[in-house]
Amino acid sequence: MDTILNLLPLDDRQRALFSAAAPNCEQLFRPSTGLRYSADGVSLRELARATVILGCAPPQSLQVAANLKWLQTWSAGVDPYLAPGVLPEGTVLTSAVGAYGAAVAEHMLASVLALFRRLPDYRDAQRAGRWAEALPVKTLRGATVLCLGTGDIGGHFAASCQALGAHTVGLSRHPERQVPGLSEHHALAELDSWLPRADVVAMALPAAPETIHLMDARRLALLRPSAVLVNAGRGSAVDCMALAEALKAGRLWAAALDVTEPEPLPSGHPLWSCPNLLLTPHTAGGDGLENTVQAVVDIALENLRRYVGGQPLLNRMR
Amino acid sequence: MDTILNLLPLDDRQRALFSAAAPNCEQLFRPSTGLRYSADGVSLRELARATVILGCAPPQSLQVAANLKWLQTWSAGVDPYLAPGVLPEGTVLTSAVGAYGAAVAEHMLASVLALFRRLPDYRDAQRAGRWAEALPVKTLRGATVLCLGTGDIGGHFAASCQALGAHTVGLSRHPERQVPGLSEHHALAELDSWLPRADVVAMALPAAPETIHLMDARRLALLRPSAVLVNAGRGSAVDCMALAEALKAGRLWAAALDVTEPEPLPSGHPLWSCPNLLLTPHTAGGDGLENTVQAVVDIALENLRRYVGGQPLLNRMR
Repeated sequence: MDTILNLLPLDDRQRALFSAAAPNCEQLFRPSTGLRYSADGVSLRELARATVILGCAPPQSLQVAANLKWLQTWSAGVDPYLAPGVLPEGTVLTSAVGAYGAAVAEHMLASVLALFRRLPDYRDAQRAGRWAEALPVKTLRGATVLCLGTGDIGGHFAASCQALGAHTVGLSRHPERQVPGLSEHHALAELDSWLPRADVVAMALPAAPETIHLMDARRLALLRPSAVLVNAGRGSAVDCMALAEALKAGRLWAAALDVTEPEPLPSGHPLWSCPNLLLTPHTAGGDGLENTVQAVVDIALENLRRYVGGQPLLNRMR
Repeated sequence: MDTILNLLPLDDRQRALFSAAAPNCEQLFRPSTGLRYSADGVSLRELARATVILGCAPPQSLQVAANLKWLQTWSAGVDPYLAPGVLPEGTVLTSAVGAYGAAVAEHMLASVLALFRRLPDYRDAQRAGRWAEALPVKTLRGATVLCLGTGDIGGHFAASCQALGAHTVGLSRHPERQVPGLSEHHALAELDSWLPRADVVAMALPAAPETIHLMDARRLALLRPSAVLVNAGRGSAVDCMALAEALKAGRLWAAALDVTEPEPLPSGHPLWSCPNLLLTPHTAGGDGLENTVQAVVDIALENLRRYVGGQPLLNRMR
């Protein structure tokens, strides 16, 4: 009989659904207060007994989970659990990829539009009691939006920009894939030829060795001075020192970063003093959003039903 | 023979189009530096000779324009020119309504998304060197967006919100009109019953006696504490003192105002010190936007062709 350690933040109705999905299993409900790495309320004894964990138990605590057969994360990325020795050999790992794309994309859209309409400048003016126009402004209508990464996040972002009148160009490792919001889809290898044509460069790339410092000083120099860069994927995909230099020299209109390298951004980092930067602390996923939590819960519940029924699991990462 | 005083900010190519549209008229090109009320470079003698003015000559200067047969504004609203004695009797007046809707709607969307994702809070945190999450956040997916006014602006705004997953409810004096971006369209008289159901109240109402202080203290009290109010129509449609009180008391999540009453907002007005307010200085129309200027020029050029050809003019206001 399976022992399911359920760390998801569930209400009573949802809890009943999880109980009903695995009627012959022991299910220990130890709800987290949000979608956080947290071992609050989880005993090592329970971790040791668990054959299934639904939620992000802290990776370092999993050394005691010797009986673990399946771990379902509530995160989209699972890098910490793929490190050697974290999970017992043979443990199946599934992620919540797909639950965050719409929320991250909406944050990216909010950031781009805020920069286009100079809302950070207006915020500064408001705090200073100043009623003064900030010009010029920019619009997504007719803009060329370059989406680096065309998965869950990039696809949602492209679709919203296209709906607002932009021409959307996706660059990825799978340009043959049909992505509804893209006007064009090309190989990421064509990046250098597209950068000089972009009004917006939107980065939502997965963590991978080849994406580290993808936007380095050389590539930043290929952008138009009127271009806007937004990154909500991995902080390491942008050379943050080179970006700060480009912003301060006016070689770039503005940038929005939800992720940085390192993270949190250390005090004294030159990015802190870039006025044409909008900085948010890795919050684009909208952990507090009901829709995001619901989407994570839906994936976990569907996978629990599949697990109990002996069917292949969704979002399998190993 | 007509004498056309052309105040539009035109490039050489556009100027040639206007010349070609009225080959047998004298056309004086006195370009403004933007879409501004301005008499720079315009002599009183030229105003007195003009039979047609394309552009927003300052209303007080028109007393000398005794020969004026037609005035084409570059503004959408024409209230200043409708005041008694401003235009000679019988002068035809046409506006640029339709040129600004997309730009104003995009600014409204930028403002709502910025408030939903707490970008003003993050801007303040960034200026203070603080890396800290601001929760909760909100999303347009599944939100109910109430659009007060369903014309050029309201229609564009509704369409963009609907594309981002919102349920859009239009309220206007012409609920029988088909508006593509609206999920529902009802009479403005139903306002009080809709306010308690709205996540966003978006105001883009024309100036009219019945819209003055439409959102007063009583109606603001009908909103959910989680609701967001945005106004980019007329400042007088909101009781700004009552709004400041509601914001400070937390009876409203946040507000974005591009227009205020009075305008500019006087120093010391309680709205200046509302942290959950995003204030922009009547700039939503995006005067600096190429698309907006182009749309204004297109309307004026089409109307000039119609005028010369003896056809009925577009956007006739009197």
